[in-house]
Amino acid sequence: MRISAETEREFLQAVFKAQHFSDQDGALLADTLVDADLRGISSHGIQRLAWYTRMIKDHTLEPEQQPKILKESSTSLLIDANKSMGQIASAFTMNKLIAKAKQSSIAMAVIRNSNHFGTAGYYSRMAAKQGLIGISTTNTRPLVVPTNSLEAFLGSNALAFTFPADPHPFVFDGATAVVSSGKIQVLAKKGEQIPGDWAVDENRHVLHDAKTVEDNLAKIAFSEERPGGGVLTLGGQDEVNSNYKGFGNSLIIELLTGILAQGSLSADTNTGKHDFSQFFMVIDPAFFGDLDVLKANVTNMFDRIRHLKHLPGTKIMIPGDREYKHYDENLVQGVSIDEATLDEMRAVGDEFGVTVPSEASVED
Amino acid sequence: MRISAETEREFLQAVFKAQHFSDQDGALLADTLVDADLRGISSHGIQRLAWYTRMIKDHTLEPEQQPKILKESSTSLLIDANKSMGQIASAFTMNKLIAKAKQSSIAMAVIRNSNHFGTAGYYSRMAAKQGLIGISTTNTRPLVVPTNSLEAFLGSNALAFTFPADPHPFVFDGATAVVSSGKIQVLAKKGEQIPGDWAVDENRHVLHDAKTVEDNLAKIAFSEERPGGGVLTLGGQDEVNSNYKGFGNSLIIELLTGILAQGSLSADTNTGKHDFSQFFMVIDPAFFGDLDVLKANVTNMFDRIRHLKHLPGTKIMIPGDREYKHYDENLVQGVSIDEATLDEMRAVGDEFGVTVPSEASVED
Repeated sequence: MRISAETEREFLQAVFKAQHFSDQDGALLADTLVDADLRGISSHGIQRLAWYTRMIKDHTLEPEQQPKILKESSTSLLIDANKSMGQIASAFTMNKLIAKAKQSSIAMAVIRNSNHFGTAGYYSRMAAKQGLIGISTTNTRPLVVPTNSLEAFLGSNALAFTFPADPHPFVFDGATAVVSSGKIQVLAKKGEQIPGDWAVDENRHVLHDAKTVEDNLAKIAFSEERPGGGVLTLGGQDEVNSNYKGFGNSLIIELLTGILAQGSLSADTNTGKHDFSQFFMVIDPAFFGDLDVLKANVTNMFDRIRHLKHLPGTKIMIPGDREYKHYDENLVQGVSIDEATLDEMRAVGDEFGVTVPSEASVED
Repeated sequence: MRISAETEREFLQAVFKAQHFSDQDGALLADTLVDADLRGISSHGIQRLAWYTRMIKDHTLEPEQQPKILKESSTSLLIDANKSMGQIASAFTMNKLIAKAKQSSIAMAVIRNSNHFGTAGYYSRMAAKQGLIGISTTNTRPLVVPTNSLEAFLGSNALAFTFPADPHPFVFDGATAVVSSGKIQVLAKKGEQIPGDWAVDENRHVLHDAKTVEDNLAKIAFSEERPGGGVLTLGGQDEVNSNYKGFGNSLIIELLTGILAQGSLSADTNTGKHDFSQFFMVIDPAFFGDLDVLKANVTNMFDRIRHLKHLPGTKIMIPGDREYKHYDENLVQGVSIDEATLDEMRAVGDEFGVTVPSEASVED
């Protein structure tokens, strides 16, 4: 079904209030999920609510705790998220980096003891709104098989990079792996097949049944079982197509997050200490030239790329284009909720005494 | 044939001296090429000498000019390479960034009016030697077809990232595209086939004949002809395998280089103004924790990854492992020079009155 973004937001805020988040934190959390659903990134939208709720119960996530600054300079921050939700620590950190970058041209931060932070792009877009370059990264649970490996070790390790442009900023936002596990979860919930070479079994054979893959990834990511297999690095199955470059990209994120934070590696978040780590950076492009000139040059470059000769029946889209298009459409038609997610919403709604929106809400 | 690294170095230094580089600049240039050949990255070794020589003749490269600082703060630098060789401007810049990062924890620089800079990894390793994280990027000539595009626009846009570790630093160094054009050049010079899905024709069909691809890329990269086709983005042929992520990675480099430098885009370096742009960053990991502890944690992570269960007959190598292994081997056995490159060395040697090393030199 579809519901309006505002209906989704009201439902989420009511749930988060009942889960003892402050009004401000609940509004932020709801905004990150609604924003993802509007952009068509349903993997990182309301379908995560049931997981967030489980994290509160097992004390991976403490709704009433706030992030703390451990170390600060004019360019750099080390933050302890203090088991708050990743979104809360990340927005807190990004606001500080934006102020620092306006003074020092560049600023960076590492967060430890954090949780899932939604889409990486949310925080990078905060910087883009201020005419700044934003970089956001996180490690995750173990999901990804290194080049030639038969077992997962790396996280899907998200990277978002934004750069000011018109009519909207450049927003590159995604897992460094071929896909995020969320994308597979969504297909599994819908009972669909995986359309590409995304995941492999314990013999490194490609699997296409989303439910089979999702069940396997759940074991790898959330238990001490080590069934083998996982998500492929960008570049796919074969070393000859440079899949070690995707491996390298994922390792770079692991180094900037788990290692710099001295938190867990993705590989060690399956059980015990469930902490994720994040790395953020903000750069002021105005150090190098007039922002309006830079923006015009970027906008012009993207227009040239969009108009290159292309395969019949396809379009050349700049990263971010698709999500802004979905955003505009979904603001009008409402966001799409699959049946399995609706069931989860009903269970959470029942538990916390919040009424679950119905189909009619799209007319709201 | 094979020649010793020292013989290669002496030959190159003599050529660069005859080409009016200063002794210091000639030694640096020679070192970057010898270093690449020792690491088995022959695409970026002495096989580039003939091209460098052509660049001097058409005044793309001015051997006697030096880089200039246009703008400087405690964290940031804007440099005009002044048509000096990329290696010269890059080493100059990286030395300044290392000093700044030791003070400010992070520092960045953009270089305009530059040239090819050899391997990106050379400069990032300068930072790693000082216990710092080094990031080096460059745009290049137009070579790479965006997702769904039938024509090249992006450069192969190299990225190097280093992180201190033992027994050697983590060195991720390569094109953001599936491969650099140099790798195809080497296969073409040897008359070999392309083993993977690296390049496509004007209909986006994969090509495997290296000579055919190299001839096509030479037209795309060095003339006003627009024959279509080019090198694929990481992720390969199909959008369903997320090749837009490779496209996004290449765009990020283009934004940090050509755009921030207000130099040419890769797309516009085929004729006319031949300038490349570079972006560098240095981060002091010691802001976040004790360097020895961080290094030990990284070293331990890599050892765990190397020992994961893997496909029979393969090895799991961390980016950098292969190149350090080649380095140790080639220091003993000499560096490999193919016949086509040897012919080019003879032509350059004849022109500048420098004796070309012979096979026997390996005993030097």
